Amino acid sequence: MKKVLIYSGGLDSTVLLYKLIADGNKVECLGVDYHQRHKRELFSAARICDSLGVNFYKIELPIDHILGQNSLTSSFIAVPDGHYEEEQMKVTVVPNRNMIILSMGIALAITKNAEAVCYAAHNGDHAIYPDCRDEFATAMDSAARLCHFNPIRIDRPFIGMTKTDIVKLGDSLDADFASTWSCYKGGNKHCGTCGTCVERKEAFVLAEVPDPTEYL
Amino acid sequence: MKKVLIYSGGLDSTVLLYKLIADGNKVECLGVDYHQRHKRELFSAARICDSLGVNFYKIELPIDHILGQNSLTSSFIAVPDGHYEEEQMKVTVVPNRNMIILSMGIALAITKNAEAVCYAAHNGDHAIYPDCRDEFATAMDSAARLCHFNPIRIDRPFIGMTKTDIVKLGDSLDADFASTWSCYKGGNKHCGTCGTCVERKEAFVLAEVPDPTEYL
Repeated sequence: MKKVLIYSGGLDSTVLLYKLIADGNKVECLGVDYHQRHKRELFSAARICDSLGVNFYKIELPIDHILGQNSLTSSFIAVPDGHYEEEQMKVTVVPNRNMIILSMGIALAITKNAEAVCYAAHNGDHAIYPDCRDEFATAMDSAARLCHFNPIRIDRPFIGMTKTDIVKLGDSLDADFASTWSCYKGGNKHCGTCGTCVERKEAFVLAEVPDPTEYL
Repeated sequence: MKKVLIYSGGLDSTVLLYKLIADGNKVECLGVDYHQRHKRELFSAARICDSLGVNFYKIELPIDHILGQNSLTSSFIAVPDGHYEEEQMKVTVVPNRNMIILSMGIALAITKNAEAVCYAAHNGDHAIYPDCRDEFATAMDSAARLCHFNPIRIDRPFIGMTKTDIVKLGDSLDADFASTWSCYKGGNKHCGTCGTCVERKEAFVLAEVPDPTEYL
């Protein structure tokens, strides 16, 4: 089976890449540079794809002027610290990011004759992001099945799993955790205090898997 | 009411721009350069927006490498002549173009607090393009209502109209037909023989409206 993976170079999508390969799929990876502050994640993505012999398609979307002001693409709005559930995290919402990225993944799936676009949403994804909710994913799956002559599926194989489950799975697959990148601040080392760093740390602790990440 | 219009600078979307303004809407226009051969249509769009005092947001999507080979974005695949219904027109299908463009329009709508994204699909749009069909538009409308905190609508105000009806409406609104661009070949003058030129010519004849277009 051929599948397109929306691939950020983060922990979750890296484990999904390993899992798809282990299940015998041919995988085409798509990374999207939307001028996110942490776009160094895409260097991680490219390096890991290279090590696994997987194609990595990177696209750049110079669309800052329609995305308004949010802390992921505007350098003058700070990335908040804390847990995702909190009100201040709303500033990290990039308008319609998931639909934009999925639409690109579907285009690549059509071009490559892949049957599905996969992404690593999991059950800890957050209600503060409307485009992480089930209803949205279901609507996008319907649209994907109708947008071309052959239907494309939208698959979220990790949707029933916690981030801790993902770390355990990655450990069992010998995933290269050390090469992945999560931090929204995008410095030289993971900050250890932004929402995504906090989650990453917790997941390794709860999974009882050694965390190879160097935090500031 | 504030609305985002997907605006190509073609005949249909230009008439829709005039109509939305006549109905008292505040309109934000979005034009997308996906390296289409006929991207000169966007010069028409910018000029017409300027004449009407409407904002025109142009985005460039340098994504040729995920769109495969089709006659609209690959300079070495010819644009076929003839009517849209014909088999040879399939080469003009750009993978997932409408979802990609709508996803950008929805992002702009979120950023600008607009309530809807409008586009000028009409009842002559063609079954050869799966992403022009009603089922697809309905699925996208569902996704748009779910992708953010405030629901966004996808509106197709012309879906019950023929291109001839659109020309008649444009004539009644004094639309600047002469500044619009339709031809897929994107030369200096409309070719008069590609699918979109054939339709444009026919619509003016059937509407009994003088056609200001200079054809080759």
